[in-house]
Amino acid sequence: MSLLVTGSIGIDTVKTPYGVSENCLGGSAVYFSMTAGFFSPVRFVGVIGSDCPFDLAEVFANRDVDLRGLEIRAQSKTFRWAGTYHENMDDRTTDHVELNVLAEAPPKVPDAFKDSKFVFLANTAPILQQQLLEQIDEPVFVAVDTMNLWIQGYPDDLIALLTKIDCLIINEDEARMLADRHNLIRAAKKILEMGPSVVIAKKGESGSIMCNTDGDIFILPAFPADDVIDPTGAGDSFAGGFMGYLAQTGRTDFETLKTAVAYGTVLASFTIADFSLDGLTSTDRTNIDERLQELRNITQF
Amino acid sequence: MSLLVTGSIGIDTVKTPYGVSENCLGGSAVYFSMTAGFFSPVRFVGVIGSDCPFDLAEVFANRDVDLRGLEIRAQSKTFRWAGTYHENMDDRTTDHVELNVLAEAPPKVPDAFKDSKFVFLANTAPILQQQLLEQIDEPVFVAVDTMNLWIQGYPDDLIALLTKIDCLIINEDEARMLADRHNLIRAAKKILEMGPSVVIAKKGESGSIMCNTDGDIFILPAFPADDVIDPTGAGDSFAGGFMGYLAQTGRTDFETLKTAVAYGTVLASFTIADFSLDGLTSTDRTNIDERLQELRNITQF
Repeated sequence: MSLLVTGSIGIDTVKTPYGVSENCLGGSAVYFSMTAGFFSPVRFVGVIGSDCPFDLAEVFANRDVDLRGLEIRAQSKTFRWAGTYHENMDDRTTDHVELNVLAEAPPKVPDAFKDSKFVFLANTAPILQQQLLEQIDEPVFVAVDTMNLWIQGYPDDLIALLTKIDCLIINEDEARMLADRHNLIRAAKKILEMGPSVVIAKKGESGSIMCNTDGDIFILPAFPADDVIDPTGAGDSFAGGFMGYLAQTGRTDFETLKTAVAYGTVLASFTIADFSLDGLTSTDRTNIDERLQELRNITQF
Repeated sequence: MSLLVTGSIGIDTVKTPYGVSENCLGGSAVYFSMTAGFFSPVRFVGVIGSDCPFDLAEVFANRDVDLRGLEIRAQSKTFRWAGTYHENMDDRTTDHVELNVLAEAPPKVPDAFKDSKFVFLANTAPILQQQLLEQIDEPVFVAVDTMNLWIQGYPDDLIALLTKIDCLIINEDEARMLADRHNLIRAAKKILEMGPSVVIAKKGESGSIMCNTDGDIFILPAFPADDVIDPTGAGDSFAGGFMGYLAQTGRTDFETLKTAVAYGTVLASFTIADFSLDGLTSTDRTNIDERLQELRNITQF
């Protein structure tokens, strides 16, 4: 089934203990499309300025990514982000942000995309996520990412959005903040009362936990990594693998959601193994399926 | 096969956000025996003073725990520990410690126990663990717990001990400290080079990770808990479920070790659901096996 993503395209500068990657391609919609594209065609909605040095058509040359929703604004500049990851790779410092085009009106969803059934709204202001969602006619499964900035600064907008979506994908600390509960299971249950039928809390190297309104729970560790080179994009890659697999199967029952979480976990593990998109561009679906089987062996008893 | 434990018997006072449990029975050998006893007979080696208000024969009345290794020293006092768990239940403050009899010579292993095949040496000074181990004729599988105090203060003793054991069961932060590696997979591999053929790093509510010298990895989340009442004894309960199942089966292949980790995880979940031993005394093997199946459902895809 059709899969649409709205999110950012960024020019990233990332420092980690392994090195520096300057002015590389990043952004939530980019990581999402690169990963979801292993499973399903992707409809891409995002905006860049005229300064963007990357040709996205070339970037996605081997993926079925429909760029009719990519808007290039001649008078605007592309979103830029610079950050440093510290020794433990969990903590990061934002060194520099230029919102640029992301501070302007969001891009429009092309008419040809309005019948999309699976929708991922990457992290941005919840009021914008709602405006984007309203442009989709009859979505089947809508997943959303958000962050502490919106939970603390725009709780009413976020709570209004939550009543309109199916799945919230969120970091564990943000889940605790949103629900005002320390225990993560209790936090997830509280969030389910706010509207979504599925919530996924991401725990970094400790994996993720998924709960639904039927009381089902699924917990999966991260794929074990000797080397984490650059964690940037891990969350959006997880979402891409997750939503890509759902769109491929066209199903949203809990067993399918479990496998989708496993694919999301695998895709995130490829992303963090190299800088920028390099860990993704160097792999293929065969490698992905092999690693899914490895993840199964590592976690099943 | 025969299973022996050496460890502490304590009089604990525990404060958590849920309440206070004063002067209750605790100690590593007690939690271990209570949990391992669901699977296998246990040979108990430990020491108390004449002030101990608990009749261990009564405590273990429904378990097959052989107390011939329990020494009562008329002139000594029993180990006491008081601690407070904070809101997140991961951090705890030690309010008060009286080592008492634990600061004296360790108890002797009775002759009748010297042919034990499975051995768990609960946390104490590594030099004492080594002296205890030397009293066992031909152990098949020896597992050891340790802590930051010994890693930092007595590294030579600990490293000497590691060359003589099969399995180290340790908290993740202690694994990182011992290996001087932040990445937990790298830390585990470094520890395996020090002697043991298996290492298990415990990650609290994020479960545990087991690695062996053949390159096998197993990762299992903790059983999800809405309510953590009192985490005291979780680690020793994990070890008890783990070693109890191994002793029951008499096997130590990796598939058996995986199931043993799952049983350890389940037993820890019963322990933390109530104060002191109450979460364990109120359950039985049927409940344990049901929860093992639940854990399988929650983690398998």
